[in-house]
Amino acid sequence: MSEQGPFIDLTAPQDAGQAAYNLAAELYPICRSITGAGILATLQTLKSRIPLTIYEVPSGTPVFDWTIPKEWNIRDAYVKDKSGKRVIDFQKSNLHVLNYSTPVRMVMPLSQLRERLYTLPDYPDWIPYRTSYYKENWGFCLSHTELAALPEGDYEVCIDSSLEPGKLVYGEYVIPGASSHEILFSTHVCHPSLCNDNLSGAALCLGLAKFLSGQKLHYTYRFLFVPGTIGAITWLAKNEAWVDKIHGGLVVACVGDPGHMHYKKSRRGNAPVDRAAEYVLKNNGKPYEIEEFSPFGYDERQYNSPGFNLPVGSLTRTPHGRFPQYHTSADNLDFIRPEALQNSFEMFLEVIQVLENDQHFVNTNPKCEPQLGRRGLYSLFGGHRSTPAMEQAFLWILNFADGDHSLLDIAERSGLHFSLIRSAASALHKVGLLKKAGATSDDF
Amino acid sequence: MSEQGPFIDLTAPQDAGQAAYNLAAELYPICRSITGAGILATLQTLKSRIPLTIYEVPSGTPVFDWTIPKEWNIRDAYVKDKSGKRVIDFQKSNLHVLNYSTPVRMVMPLSQLRERLYTLPDYPDWIPYRTSYYKENWGFCLSHTELAALPEGDYEVCIDSSLEPGKLVYGEYVIPGASSHEILFSTHVCHPSLCNDNLSGAALCLGLAKFLSGQKLHYTYRFLFVPGTIGAITWLAKNEAWVDKIHGGLVVACVGDPGHMHYKKSRRGNAPVDRAAEYVLKNNGKPYEIEEFSPFGYDERQYNSPGFNLPVGSLTRTPHGRFPQYHTSADNLDFIRPEALQNSFEMFLEVIQVLENDQHFVNTNPKCEPQLGRRGLYSLFGGHRSTPAMEQAFLWILNFADGDHSLLDIAERSGLHFSLIRSAASALHKVGLLKKAGATSDDF
Amino acid sequence: MSEQGPFIDLTAPQDAGQAAYNLAAELYPICRSITGAGILATLQTLKSRIPLTIYEVPSGTPVFDWTIPKEWNIRDAYVKDKSGKRVIDFQKSNLHVLNYSTPVRMVMPLSQLRERLYTLPDYPDWIPYRTSYYKENWGFCLSHTELAALPEGDYEVCIDSSLEPGKLVYGEYVIPGASSHEILFSTHVCHPSLCNDNLSGAALCLGLAKFLSGQKLHYTYRFLFVPGTIGAITWLAKNEAWVDKIHGGLVVACVGDPGHMHYKKSRRGNAPVDRAAEYVLKNNGKPYEIEEFSPFGYDERQYNSPGFNLPVGSLTRTPHGRFPQYHTSADNLDFIRPEALQNSFEMFLEVIQVLENDQHFVNTNPKCEPQLGRRGLYSLFGGHRSTPAMEQAFLWILNFADGDHSLLDIAERSGLHFSLIRSAASALHKVGLLKKAGATSDDF
Repeated sequence: MSEQGPFIDLTAPQDAGQAAYNLAAELYPICRSITGAGILATLQTLKSRIPLTIYEVPSGTPVFDWTIPKEWNIRDAYVKDKSGKRVIDFQKSNLHVLNYSTPVRMVMPLSQLRERLYTLPDYPDWIPYRTSYYKENWGFCLSHTELAALPEGDYEVCIDSSLEPGKLVYGEYVIPGASSHEILFSTHVCHPSLCNDNLSGAALCLGLAKFLSGQKLHYTYRFLFVPGTIGAITWLAKNEAWVDKIHGGLVVACVGDPGHMHYKKSRRGNAPVDRAAEYVLKNNGKPYEIEEFSPFGYDERQYNSPGFNLPVGSLTRTPHGRFPQYHTSADNLDFIRPEALQNSFEMFLEVIQVLENDQHFVNTNPKCEPQLGRRGLYSLFGGHRSTPAMEQAFLWILNFADGDHSLLDIAERSGLHFSLIRSAASALHKVGLLKKAGATSDDF
Repeated sequence: MSEQGPFIDLTAPQDAGQAAYNLAAELYPICRSITGAGILATLQTLKSRIPLTIYEVPSGTPVFDWTIPKEWNIRDAYVKDKSGKRVIDFQKSNLHVLNYSTPVRMVMPLSQLRERLYTLPDYPDWIPYRTSYYKENWGFCLSHTELAALPEGDYEVCIDSSLEPGKLVYGEYVIPGASSHEILFSTHVCHPSLCNDNLSGAALCLGLAKFLSGQKLHYTYRFLFVPGTIGAITWLAKNEAWVDKIHGGLVVACVGDPGHMHYKKSRRGNAPVDRAAEYVLKNNGKPYEIEEFSPFGYDERQYNSPGFNLPVGSLTRTPHGRFPQYHTSADNLDFIRPEALQNSFEMFLEVIQVLENDQHFVNTNPKCEPQLGRRGLYSLFGGHRSTPAMEQAFLWILNFADGDHSLLDIAERSGLHFSLIRSAASALHKVGLLKKAGATSDDF
Repeated sequence: MSEQGPFIDLTAPQDAGQAAYNLAAELYPICRSITGAGILATLQTLKSRIPLTIYEVPSGTPVFDWTIPKEWNIRDAYVKDKSGKRVIDFQKSNLHVLNYSTPVRMVMPLSQLRERLYTLPDYPDWIPYRTSYYKENWGFCLSHTELAALPEGDYEVCIDSSLEPGKLVYGEYVIPGASSHEILFSTHVCHPSLCNDNLSGAALCLGLAKFLSGQKLHYTYRFLFVPGTIGAITWLAKNEAWVDKIHGGLVVACVGDPGHMHYKKSRRGNAPVDRAAEYVLKNNGKPYEIEEFSPFGYDERQYNSPGFNLPVGSLTRTPHGRFPQYHTSADNLDFIRPEALQNSFEMFLEVIQVLENDQHFVNTNPKCEPQLGRRGLYSLFGGHRSTPAMEQAFLWILNFADGDHSLLDIAERSGLHFSLIRSAASALHKVGLLKKAGATSDDF
């Protein structure tokens, strides 16, 4: 434990949301995929702000039940009508191409091409986002309105892409703390021009990483910027030996929309990170939802697979698939808001603060109450009807600081806010009435 | 485990209810008791349909705290008025005689006879059913209206019965399964002309036994047709050595009335049969009630006595004592319905199916998700908002097939129907992604 | 176990409430404090009724984190106006003096004196009760109306008190039972002329002690009459070695007001005394509240400190601080009622009865039901729709008397009243169908 004592108090910078928004805007135009130049450019942009390590894994490498796929790159793609006009143009939106499309260059009638055109009839002005990572295929996505306007006849089709042995890349950044136990933040950076899912997650993680790198912390913090599914699987395959050092983690996605916060628990359901996130959302005074783990969503699927069962939850605003703009061109820079990103940042920081401070203490004077009055911690003038909140906090902590109850347990049991309990514990620690419990929780 | 794999899918015959009704109608006229010719004739009728073994135990044999009583037989009984007319006539309804009445032949005034006449003032047209098995006694039961119509004066009373050393009989039928662990069905067959309680139970068990005898089953199935209380006690006394092989059981009674299903849990409260029955009733879309164990009712009292504590519940329609017709002449062939018997049959079969299939599996690829797409089990085309139900089932099973969660656990956790979970598990088992867990549940 | 069998049935004397009221009235005028002549006179009054042992502990003795304070005594105190009239007079109410005031004799202007005058603006006619035990100080308490009526100018101030090395006293009375395990009743006797808090507690304990001293009891009963906080701490310091013999305890206070009963659980939350008190209040047919332990209130704070964690709850009517009269002159002989004291007495006795009788038994005939009929405990005439309550009790007890379920468990599980369960258990014990379980609960 550091000399400063076990207590930490972090305040989010007021421009955290705007900074995250600006970064999302900068990254927005890039055509990302699970491999290729787009995700690499994205990681390099992040690396210009924090000292990210970028790892490369060659195509064909086995990772558990999977294999690193070929690398996909794309330069241009379009469908031209007879007049040579681009009626579908990758240069206007990279969502127009079925992600991971193999190269194609041919002329075909609309009647035949139509099988390879994807639209959203329910949202006729939006372009859908579609992928075919693990089966070679090609196609285009466009708005239903655009499709309806296309006359029959021949069209020139071009996808100037390549799908060849190459590499998968991902980024990692570690902030060492006093403990070798880690808090993991994992965010997927494979989606092309989609903002909430998941430039918001990448930008928020970048901001958190930058902020925490200046703090004196108990835990070690690890930030992962990975392609979805295959990236998390790859990382787990390479780090399998030590991942039981992860004290808690959060998958970060969809943190920029105007909806309220959702926390999806880890598979364990009662890990410290689950209790911390639940506490923060419950005591924040705003609408929220807590959900049990389910094997859908983002990379929590991999971290919570039964062979790992890591204490990794997912803290989002509106979860995947539950906002209409999900996986469409409407998930754009208008959909995410700096103030939503700011609030998300604060919620993540609150969770971090609970994790950092939720320690186990032991009352050094456990037989009867200690005499707080002579230590200046209790009114010496008696007979009053009620007890001030801070004195209440002292009594709750002294009674339950038995090594079995953490500060969060005491906050929940007493109904007093965690920040008050933390301050009271700090005061009791200072006068020697509390000491750290033995190794009751990880390396604490 | 059999070669066919662990999955079984049974469909109730459409005429199961009608067949049970017909059998109840055939057995209805017989005057049964806990011993004697009536119960023996009943067992022989059942034996003509399934290869029942009929056991005999001599009067006077001690069984735990009890002793096999003398055998009771009756040929005729009546009360005649001065004109020689039978005003109470056993030939019209065997309920007219207090069951186990000792022989009597005398003339007595109504004023004196009245002490031995039992009626139901609240249901003046119904004959009550009364017994005196363990204290020598005699009497008649009749409708309150009939009693009110009797003029004062002398009556000739005759009960042509015998109560002599003889034997107690009960029937047993066993269908061997792959496992030596057993599912027990126990039904009482001692009641005279009463349909819901319990010709319905006997007839339903006969139908289930017949149906299951043609199936390839994991568990061994044992059907008991016993006189109430003393029969179950006798059977337990004779089979005490091995009854811990019983994986689950159900006492079968009152399964023909038009009321909704009730499940009364075993004393353990969370035995596999409790969870299976609760699941089936909850997911059947019809009204139902689940009740904790209580030491009243039928032979679950004996199976759940603390020295045995067997996992035996009771699945009924309206439970004992809660329908007005209970233990009266109104519990007749009009009170039970073929369609109610059919529905009961289906519910019992559903419980059997859950028990047969509720096994523990282990994901053979527990670290990260396996790549379902290349096995043809998952869409290779990505980006959609939602996941089809079968793919959801795959993910739930793979995540929770850790040896600790049975298929029923996974169905309950996921909210997906057990039959879908079972089908999905079968598909995963086929491609080798699931294997049976070690001996985590009985002999599974 | 005593020869009389394990069952006890106690009835509260009808004048218990009036007797307690009379004792409170007798003790009311005395000026008590945590030390000094007042508390000693109080203990001596109690000793005239029960053979109390009075313990003395010298000032300066260390007790855990505390030190026995100097002894405080007071003879007179007043504030006189220029005319020599006592405008504040200790002889009229001992609440007028800040308890533990150091001696003072001086003349001072009201403007200066005002800082040492305590009133209750919200209740302008009541005198507050204030203390300064652990910091030397002096002051007066008076009604807000009286203060408002005082003209400016000089006043003669006199507190004829002494604060000198002396002793702390407390009383203890023990009623030996068959077992060395104890039930503890602890009540604070340090408050001056305040009735509900806590002459009611002292008087009730005296009455209980007197009543129980004539009974044949399983547990040993210990009554403590102590100054609040420091008295309980002192007692714990002197008795630390054996207090794990305490099977359960109750802090007794505020038992005379007209409000409904409150039970505050011990820190353990599920100790036998918690379950007994909760059961009694729930089944009493009157309003009540059950509360979890909190580290506020009376001496349960010390008994439940984590180094002791004794199973001591608090049974009160309206708890400390929740009635307006709390710690004011309005907590007088009009505020407490004989009938409230009577009801409190009965509730305490009910809890004692549950504790005495809540034992573990074992069915001596655990395999199948025993034949109750031949023992005269069950109707031999069968077929009825329902079972009489006593026969239900027999069946519940026989089914759950497995050594794991106490009689209270069985009462709660069955919904039958504890007194019926106790009677039924007594009958079963008499015919040999029940025997005491092994050492499953303390020394039972």
